[in-house]
Amino acid sequence: MSELREDPITGGWVIISPERKGRIFDFVSQTKEKQTGECFLCEGHESETPPEVFSLRKRGTKPNTPGWWVRVVPNKYPVLQIRGKPDLEKRGIYKMMRGMGAHEMIIETPKHKENLFSLGDKHISQVIRVYQNRVVRLMKIPYIKYVLIFKNQGKEAGASLRHSHSQIIATPIIPRKVQEELKGAKRYYNFNKRCIFCDIIAQELTLQKRIVLENKMFLAFTPYASRFPYEICILSKKQGFVFQEISQDELTCLTQILKNTIRAMNEALSNPSYNYFFHLPPLKGEFSKYYHCHLEIIPRLTKLAGFEWGTGFYINPVPPEEAASKLRERVFS
Amino acid sequence: MSELREDPITGGWVIISPERKGRIFDFVSQTKEKQTGECFLCEGHESETPPEVFSLRKRGTKPNTPGWWVRVVPNKYPVLQIRGKPDLEKRGIYKMMRGMGAHEMIIETPKHKENLFSLGDKHISQVIRVYQNRVVRLMKIPYIKYVLIFKNQGKEAGASLRHSHSQIIATPIIPRKVQEELKGAKRYYNFNKRCIFCDIIAQELTLQKRIVLENKMFLAFTPYASRFPYEICILSKKQGFVFQEISQDELTCLTQILKNTIRAMNEALSNPSYNYFFHLPPLKGEFSKYYHCHLEIIPRLTKLAGFEWGTGFYINPVPPEEAASKLRERVFS
Repeated sequence: MSELREDPITGGWVIISPERKGRIFDFVSQTKEKQTGECFLCEGHESETPPEVFSLRKRGTKPNTPGWWVRVVPNKYPVLQIRGKPDLEKRGIYKMMRGMGAHEMIIETPKHKENLFSLGDKHISQVIRVYQNRVVRLMKIPYIKYVLIFKNQGKEAGASLRHSHSQIIATPIIPRKVQEELKGAKRYYNFNKRCIFCDIIAQELTLQKRIVLENKMFLAFTPYASRFPYEICILSKKQGFVFQEISQDELTCLTQILKNTIRAMNEALSNPSYNYFFHLPPLKGEFSKYYHCHLEIIPRLTKLAGFEWGTGFYINPVPPEEAASKLRERVFS
Repeated sequence: MSELREDPITGGWVIISPERKGRIFDFVSQTKEKQTGECFLCEGHESETPPEVFSLRKRGTKPNTPGWWVRVVPNKYPVLQIRGKPDLEKRGIYKMMRGMGAHEMIIETPKHKENLFSLGDKHISQVIRVYQNRVVRLMKIPYIKYVLIFKNQGKEAGASLRHSHSQIIATPIIPRKVQEELKGAKRYYNFNKRCIFCDIIAQELTLQKRIVLENKMFLAFTPYASRFPYEICILSKKQGFVFQEISQDELTCLTQILKNTIRAMNEALSNPSYNYFFHLPPLKGEFSKYYHCHLEIIPRLTKLAGFEWGTGFYINPVPPEEAASKLRERVFS
């Protein structure tokens, strides 16, 4: 079973996950998948995954048989597992926890060669609705502190499977990147008595230099301090919007902006590898005053090197103003 | 000129560096270099780099001509430049600074196909001595707050040139990763009245599970919470050791442990791409009570994906105990 270990100096956490080793050194076997066009995520291969925990399927079809169009299964090589207790243990000066949590795979289509964002709006909406359902479900596990929805598309983005899918990992700790955002947003709120996300939206809408797309609920823009070329943030405009309670109208807006943004990026950058992930606040309540749920999209065009690892500074060769302008050109094409 | 921009939420900094764009999309041209075995870092091509700022060369030879064996030049595509004033400016809610600093390249050998760690101890020592000289020199620039020495070896590690070299970037801000370490080490010191680095050394020496190599001055080990497979830390054992004042004896120890560690890693992992960087404290004085200078080596075997970007957690499929054991096997072979 995997272990969560804390860095004794910085307090950062790592997951030591020997179960994943096979997966990493098995990339070669993916070539077989490419040749046959079949894989264990394809329709007809349901018995090759762990049993499904959720699916959208034709009436009358049974779980773990064909007939589905979106399917959720536990990851075959889980980073964290629902098992035992996540107690903090000490090993001299070091601290660790057992690798408790959940790791699920959302198979977005039964067909190997389909891509989520080439499908119709209804299908994309349903996948986002499944994201929401899984977040609500996993948040109910008592020791779970956070749930991350993410997607790795393409080899450079760390994807080991080509079949279109997203993942969800639920962790017993609030992740550092989320904590940093919450802390920064709270600091700003306490000092200015205003929400920093609202102020960012206002400044971006006034300047109109980094906006890619906008609708009544969401804003897609390239952040002022973009760490990566063509990095895009899709930010909810409404204070207090809660993804777990997304309405049909809001879902339509999110589907539309996400689909059009990804398509513009694919056109501008010739279908790059990319990652995206949702940053939701950990819990309802006090965060809603100063935090907005958002989605970050990172095309993987550059490699991190010694300078980035050593400092935490990022070097971005493409000004976000230029990236936004290039992306905007592709929005309606 | 590049810009340093602060993320308004997290306070992290990025360098927006349009000068680097050419370099990144020019990878293809490196194939020419591979074919001819010549490049602008090679002996005889001195006029193709910016004029050298330092070199070790045969008596009687002139700067920017052949006859050198270690040569330091400003980077052709500098991330930061020594020019103007690094004043903090506000852009509404955003903050930025002009891209002030220094970015140098240390060409470790005049020969294209040589590799630093296949050279003799004397040559390696001299390169480390050059590191030291440049740190001392760059620290004297009034607005410089930090100097990072680093090396990118291989394409997966972000290297765009094959010719053996290291780099130095001097920044007007203390980098976040260093600040995190300083803060964590200070917290531990204030609470326990002991240095955390000393406690790590003591625990590792007692356990003997993660040690790769040791000599009287340094310890090479795989950290308890290693973020990456086969990550190695070379830590100075002596409280108050100052790299900028390294003695000949200490230099011999550092050369020996660095060379043998890299060679063991190259053997165990078949010459992987890797990054290394030095973490020196920003200034002499109060840090010396609770901080030890160290060097981090990261072989680039895995790709970061959406989960890492979204959370800041790292997933490491190789337990550091296993990595240390595999590396130890190769130390004397």
